[in-house]
Amino acid sequence: MRATTIHAPGDIRFEDVPDPRIEEPTDAIVKVVAGCICGSDLWPYRGENDVTAGATIGHECVGVVEEVGSEVSTTKVGDFVIVPFCHCDNTCAHCRAGVQSACVDLGFTQSGQGEYARVTQADGSLVATDGMPDEQLIPSLLALTDVMATGWHAAVAAGVRPGHTVVVVGDGAVGLSGVLAASQMGAERVIAMSRHQPRQEIARAFGATDVVAERGEEGEARIADLTDGIGADAVLECVGTDGAMKTAFTVARPGSTVGFVGVPHGVELPVRRMFQKNVGLAGGMAPVRRYLPDLLERVLSGTIDPGKVFDLTLPMAQAAEGYRAMDERRAIKVLLQP
Amino acid sequence: MRATTIHAPGDIRFEDVPDPRIEEPTDAIVKVVAGCICGSDLWPYRGENDVTAGATIGHECVGVVEEVGSEVSTTKVGDFVIVPFCHCDNTCAHCRAGVQSACVDLGFTQSGQGEYARVTQADGSLVATDGMPDEQLIPSLLALTDVMATGWHAAVAAGVRPGHTVVVVGDGAVGLSGVLAASQMGAERVIAMSRHQPRQEIARAFGATDVVAERGEEGEARIADLTDGIGADAVLECVGTDGAMKTAFTVARPGSTVGFVGVPHGVELPVRRMFQKNVGLAGGMAPVRRYLPDLLERVLSGTIDPGKVFDLTLPMAQAAEGYRAMDERRAIKVLLQP
Repeated sequence: MRATTIHAPGDIRFEDVPDPRIEEPTDAIVKVVAGCICGSDLWPYRGENDVTAGATIGHECVGVVEEVGSEVSTTKVGDFVIVPFCHCDNTCAHCRAGVQSACVDLGFTQSGQGEYARVTQADGSLVATDGMPDEQLIPSLLALTDVMATGWHAAVAAGVRPGHTVVVVGDGAVGLSGVLAASQMGAERVIAMSRHQPRQEIARAFGATDVVAERGEEGEARIADLTDGIGADAVLECVGTDGAMKTAFTVARPGSTVGFVGVPHGVELPVRRMFQKNVGLAGGMAPVRRYLPDLLERVLSGTIDPGKVFDLTLPMAQAAEGYRAMDERRAIKVLLQP
Repeated sequence: MRATTIHAPGDIRFEDVPDPRIEEPTDAIVKVVAGCICGSDLWPYRGENDVTAGATIGHECVGVVEEVGSEVSTTKVGDFVIVPFCHCDNTCAHCRAGVQSACVDLGFTQSGQGEYARVTQADGSLVATDGMPDEQLIPSLLALTDVMATGWHAAVAAGVRPGHTVVVVGDGAVGLSGVLAASQMGAERVIAMSRHQPRQEIARAFGATDVVAERGEEGEARIADLTDGIGADAVLECVGTDGAMKTAFTVARPGSTVGFVGVPHGVELPVRRMFQKNVGLAGGMAPVRRYLPDLLERVLSGTIDPGKVFDLTLPMAQAAEGYRAMDERRAIKVLLQP
């Protein structure tokens, strides 16, 4: 098959690779209908993570089940499925506790920007739609495989409640999804930190009541003003850098929680501030499978439209251009078609 | 008056100091009936915190109100009062949110190991008993001023629920109080990490179902065994060192929370592990005033007896010996009488 690969920082190709195949009886092979580029794919692209030369890249896709292993019983060939980026058996103690991202049988989508992807623990991982979805729903269904569920997890971890004032740090697709999640959970005020007009617009469409364009200390001061010096009831940290985390803890009111979902890179947590202010930290890699049924229902009913985060669609063969566009912040999130 | 002072690491004296006096109209002066030495007093004693030569030390006491400022209205001269180590107005936004330890009018008891102590925000801070309490209740009432409320806060922050398996890291007075708190909150299993037999005995009296004497990796492996490899549903970190925190995060199951109340010293939080395992951190300086009414009721009804943590009583004049005994772990917690 053909798939997107990374050879070195900045070196993205679309080329022939071995077809994924059933390796375990619990596997399924999905023919990709749409994949996409994740903010976290930019870490290796920018050389911040190690790169295995020639490895496939991409962990988000939706598609049609092409083949299943002998022990797969609920997933059927021909099903249109949403593939959570982390695969799980959905039966172990951690899955039952709602932490499917720590499943004892954890797996990851490896070629979501390719023609086919192998899904481990197919029965536990995959959620199928009733029949083939309308084509215009594809972007929103694709968003559920990672970013929307991750933004949702940030809001759950931060303990967002009706009436809350919520600050969202980060205006990438995950941050924007966090705005949508907080709004869906009944936050009265959702303050999006964003400098970029196209992102500000989506934030507002997703329910942001305020936009703070300033960053760092200036941004923190603006939020102090907006919250009468008290701070936010819940903060969603959707970046993963030390600066974003510092801002998150600075704007969080005493007794609140920072929900974090950005993969931490160079983050040093301010443990003494956390202690003095009683500000907690919760979150991590999103247990996508836990939220999928609820989020799918919201998409199908038209309640949410998380696919708005895609502002560029390219054929997979042009994946390299998609990475460039995201790296240069010309695009928020890129959808790739086989 | 005479009070305990610290002049340098290891140099504790009981000597004449200026009487505390009403400085603000919201102040009260309390005549100390009993004070005590806190594990956190050992930080400056051991040179781990800066020392202001000649400063009074001690933030825990109970006593009788001697004098009140002109704006004090509910606290009356002659009241027997429990003095939370952190003073609060109990009316500001943070107090109303249950984070009295982040009150905008925060103050601290400064001479709890002396004959008199000044309490700022007396009406907000102090909780009085109905009349003079029975003398044998004094240790338990004294424990409420810090350690019992702090152990309780660790359990609240860790989200202890009925049926939980809880691990308590630290067998000081706070850790033992944490065992008692977890047990009161309905934990089915409370695993106390303790090497010292007298502490193990109190832990068991407080409701520990298991005691793990091993520390570090060995202790972590024992807890993995005891929890079928799943980990604890809630972990109370009651020490404040990097090693204790590491153990806490290692034994916490995915999706659980470490409740921390030990003042952090040299702690580097394992942010990537927290992310990968979705283990949160919550807690900090205990909002003692929040828990006082409930804890007082439990003491007066005989439901809890947190005063058991005191295993040495000395006159204040022998405070230096009290510090030595705690430093050398000959005593768990020392009660000082004026």
